[in-house]
Amino acid sequence: PDEGARTAARERQGALIKPAGALGRLEELSVWLAGAQGASPPRPLERVRVVVFAGDHGIARAGVSAYPPEVTAQMVAGILAGSAAVSVLARTLGASVRVVDMAVDADTPPEVSAHKVRRGSGRIDVEDALTRGEAEAAFRAGMQVADEEVDAGADLLVPGDMGIGNTTPAAVLTGVLTANDAATVMGRGTGIDDRTWMVKCAAVRDAMRRTRAVLGDPVQVLATGGGADIAAMAGFLVQAAARRTPVLLDGVVSGAAALVGQRVSYRAVDWWQAGHLSTEPAHRKALDRLSLVPLVDQGLRLGEGTGALLALPLLRAAQATLAEMATFEEAGVSGPAAG
Amino acid sequence: PDEGARTAARERQGALIKPAGALGRLEELSVWLAGAQGASPPRPLERVRVVVFAGDHGIARAGVSAYPPEVTAQMVAGILAGSAAVSVLARTLGASVRVVDMAVDADTPPEVSAHKVRRGSGRIDVEDALTRGEAEAAFRAGMQVADEEVDAGADLLVPGDMGIGNTTPAAVLTGVLTANDAATVMGRGTGIDDRTWMVKCAAVRDAMRRTRAVLGDPVQVLATGGGADIAAMAGFLVQAAARRTPVLLDGVVSGAAALVGQRVSYRAVDWWQAGHLSTEPAHRKALDRLSLVPLVDQGLRLGEGTGALLALPLLRAAQATLAEMATFEEAGVSGPAAG
Repeated sequence: PDEGARTAARERQGALIKPAGALGRLEELSVWLAGAQGASPPRPLERVRVVVFAGDHGIARAGVSAYPPEVTAQMVAGILAGSAAVSVLARTLGASVRVVDMAVDADTPPEVSAHKVRRGSGRIDVEDALTRGEAEAAFRAGMQVADEEVDAGADLLVPGDMGIGNTTPAAVLTGVLTANDAATVMGRGTGIDDRTWMVKCAAVRDAMRRTRAVLGDPVQVLATGGGADIAAMAGFLVQAAARRTPVLLDGVVSGAAALVGQRVSYRAVDWWQAGHLSTEPAHRKALDRLSLVPLVDQGLRLGEGTGALLALPLLRAAQATLAEMATFEEAGVSGPAAG
Repeated sequence: PDEGARTAARERQGALIKPAGALGRLEELSVWLAGAQGASPPRPLERVRVVVFAGDHGIARAGVSAYPPEVTAQMVAGILAGSAAVSVLARTLGASVRVVDMAVDADTPPEVSAHKVRRGSGRIDVEDALTRGEAEAAFRAGMQVADEEVDAGADLLVPGDMGIGNTTPAAVLTGVLTANDAATVMGRGTGIDDRTWMVKCAAVRDAMRRTRAVLGDPVQVLATGGGADIAAMAGFLVQAAARRTPVLLDGVVSGAAALVGQRVSYRAVDWWQAGHLSTEPAHRKALDRLSLVPLVDQGLRLGEGTGALLALPLLRAAQATLAEMATFEEAGVSGPAAG
């Protein structure tokens, strides 16, 4: 981020016709956006792009989800048809959606499956999610997708996820990377019952044990305890930062990908804001480790990028107030009385 | 609110292609909006109107604010010019703004001052803010403004405030109506120093003593410890409910007006949501008494309707997801596995 633009933004905030600090966190956001864009006041966000990384997870066959695995491909179709939650929210809040199939266990349209590395990631409680080569390919694919989007003019990127069972690898990665145990990072995902919770807990514990052994190597962490969708998302987040493009993170899956991304590139976090706080326990742990404070807390636990999109209007509000409000001098408004 | 529409909305939420409850508070909001509109799914919000009730307060001359009183009229001009925070946020987030001068201590344009009852409300620590006749006129003016807006097609109303010193009567009314003492409801308004805080605290305490004596009579409460702007806002909120039009409340001034409105019409609260939580301590006390949970908490303390506007996209998101997402059946998506 550009320190000069940040300083200029902070000064302009202090001159706007409002009490100092009265716009609360919007002021801080406007400074962050100015720094990311290298411009004060920051420019309006005109091409906000959600990229939904889709993939199936072998662990879903172990019975960790309330939904059958075929729902992943059905929901990819739903997103493409514009009838999923992320599609509706993107339309309503001014963004567009792209789906990238990294490992869906079904055929998807060619424009979606160009980066696919396999059908379904491995069952992480007993085997690696990916070979090392697949993990590297997926990570690079995510980087390439970020490049494509930035080259096409994206000025804000939002990572989304779609994959039955994907909160299990997210919990595994978060547990391992934040040094929390399985029970601390476990959540109910799409809404599982107590019996399924016990199955999921055992799976997370076993997968965490396998993943902890490779902790020093971020790509191997993705190969062992992650999946192709999360690996791609990690590459996407790292490359967005490298391309100086701001990011609104979504929920627990993007939080896990961000933790891996942080291991790859420590300063990448400067380019990310936490869009929302999910009800999944691992998400709070991940954000704490990333030192990010979520913008919105509406009790969502849907993924797809939906939580991040709810924060988009706040970012737009921050941009607009800094760019469009008058200063005391411009408006001829009296400042505070001398103390 | 329409119980049939609420039930239909709740049922449709359960059928949408997402885990039950995964949209968190958006689901509850969508049901509230359906009930308010008497329609499931609810209709898009197409004419959202912010009405800023402006007025000066004699108490400002006692030195309770960081800003001189002439700022009220200057900021009215700023709002009309489109350069104030509320103007920018309304443009950015899809709303329009009307200013109603109830008691600005200066001349304002005729289209703004049609309902004005006086120049400056009285100094409430030593005298009534308004005569009873003025309080009644102001309350009725607020009702008339709500009628005008609803008749013009408003489908969501947002009360805004503009007036140097107005957090003092807001604290007084909130303290008296929630049975809290002056120090508990006192805040720093636009950002006062310690010496000004002590002056304001004494003023709030004295005004609360005067107002507590008339507690059983809501209109007299407005006359004794309020002001023409807050009286009009109270009438506006009550009439919005009577006209079955949903409202997003803003900060501490609208919270105080809402407390008075609740005394006038207990069920009016069903038509209101709390847009945001202000940093002013009285605001939390008011929302607790109204049993409202704020949608957004970004540390704002600006008034004008700005905090409420930040919550508007959440309401739009709630409407759109319920209205536009596909159901499991429509999309051919498999539901949860049988337990």
